[in-house]
Amino acid sequence: MNKNTRFLIVGLGLIGGCYARRLTSMGYKVNALDINPDSIDYAQREGIIKRGADFSAELVAEADFLVMGLYPTAMVHWLRQHQDLLRPGALITDVSGVKSGVVEEIQAFLRPDVEFIGSHPMAGRELSGVRNSDERVFRGANFILTPTEKNTQKAIDTVHELAEILGFGRISQLSVRQHDEMVGFLSQLTHVIAITLMNCKDNTHLAAYTGDSFRDLTRIARINENLWSELFLLNRDVLVQEIDAFLDEMQNIRGKIERGDAEGLKALMVNSTYRRAFFDKDKQA
Amino acid sequence: MNKNTRFLIVGLGLIGGCYARRLTSMGYKVNALDINPDSIDYAQREGIIKRGADFSAELVAEADFLVMGLYPTAMVHWLRQHQDLLRPGALITDVSGVKSGVVEEIQAFLRPDVEFIGSHPMAGRELSGVRNSDERVFRGANFILTPTEKNTQKAIDTVHELAEILGFGRISQLSVRQHDEMVGFLSQLTHVIAITLMNCKDNTHLAAYTGDSFRDLTRIARINENLWSELFLLNRDVLVQEIDAFLDEMQNIRGKIERGDAEGLKALMVNSTYRRAFFDKDKQA
Repeated sequence: MNKNTRFLIVGLGLIGGCYARRLTSMGYKVNALDINPDSIDYAQREGIIKRGADFSAELVAEADFLVMGLYPTAMVHWLRQHQDLLRPGALITDVSGVKSGVVEEIQAFLRPDVEFIGSHPMAGRELSGVRNSDERVFRGANFILTPTEKNTQKAIDTVHELAEILGFGRISQLSVRQHDEMVGFLSQLTHVIAITLMNCKDNTHLAAYTGDSFRDLTRIARINENLWSELFLLNRDVLVQEIDAFLDEMQNIRGKIERGDAEGLKALMVNSTYRRAFFDKDKQA
Repeated sequence: MNKNTRFLIVGLGLIGGCYARRLTSMGYKVNALDINPDSIDYAQREGIIKRGADFSAELVAEADFLVMGLYPTAMVHWLRQHQDLLRPGALITDVSGVKSGVVEEIQAFLRPDVEFIGSHPMAGRELSGVRNSDERVFRGANFILTPTEKNTQKAIDTVHELAEILGFGRISQLSVRQHDEMVGFLSQLTHVIAITLMNCKDNTHLAAYTGDSFRDLTRIARINENLWSELFLLNRDVLVQEIDAFLDEMQNIRGKIERGDAEGLKALMVNSTYRRAFFDKDKQA
């Protein structure tokens, strides 16, 4: 990517901050917008960005490449409101964890002389804000592009190159639907489970007895309720389907326990052991 | 504890191996029985134990302190079969993850001149066998004693001291019922969840997209089916109750997602975040 490419990070939170740090350290010119003046001050002081503001028509107008670090619905709103300011040929991508209700909606109203292409950096922390951003979370992580028929090969190639610059380990393409089914199972269902475990009874008196299994399983129960309620509801149909499949299977294992079906239980455990081996990091391509 | 105390580890697997390594390195005399000759050969060659055999009436008869590293039902069977060989005054403890169907059953048939006291070292690995044993897993971990009215203070004190020697971080006492309710929720339910996640659909094609959340949640889906089917069924009533509470709560969150109840979802997430904070390691006493 041309080193003169001017980036604008819109929404300088945890992920936007990681992008800014990495791109700046690679020699690109990075500006940012954020409604929190502390985030902008901090990022300028630390040299993470060059210029910043809560909003600036000038910074929007000079950007070649916009990275939308806002929550999904705020991003749709922002682009609808400010697209007139964009320079012709500007490329826009996002960082949203759900693509339904986002990618195709934006592409439907966007000016024909600018281009939006969805992408999802699958990395994060249980912390928020630019102060907690650390570009190392991208190392070896997955980056998914979700192009549609409205996207050009040039935009796909450019975002692919961005992901390489950011240090992602595996960069791939999925359709909006494939992406949301994948995150519905791998990410959203697991968050639903962790939240359920913490809500199904007051377990806080058990903290002293906790081993690593329970801690690992509920690490993600510490969750940003504003972001995740939005992500769940944008992907509602898929997520409800995943929850139902999980509930059915849990009724199945519950029945085997209640009936004392040791052989049936063993078969489920043998299968879970077999499948889990595919998820070991060293087994992956 | 007197350095002349003669330990006998019955069942030299992962946990039995950890006990043997630590006790030997602390200067105690440790023998072991295991039906797998390779485990005994390995442990003798490595200096983890002094003497060992598949079975030896002599080693049983000379033991002051027996640590039963067998699976729960095999342990009950072994003690029933061989208790006549024990020397008067011998102390016996175990390492089982469930105490219902174990502690009171053994105490009911055991000779009055020997004593069995249940205990549970809450540490382990997703590996088995003495070759994988590593006493460091005990550091900072929880150790639970489950004495009954049949136990003497002397036995309680001795097993407490054993746990200190082994390096456990927190040593506490619970009744059999309290213990099994605690592990039913913290350990068994979480294993049921991990197994369910791996069985509810063929997810192996998603391995390449997996982030740490899913990996952490399913680490324990790699499971020893012979041991865990036994543990689940020994604690059947408690576990079914925990599963039902979890299923109810999951139906609750599912309903909020289906109805688009963003405020209801946020409230569940706020509560899960609040409760999860109690489980942070640094927050604990």
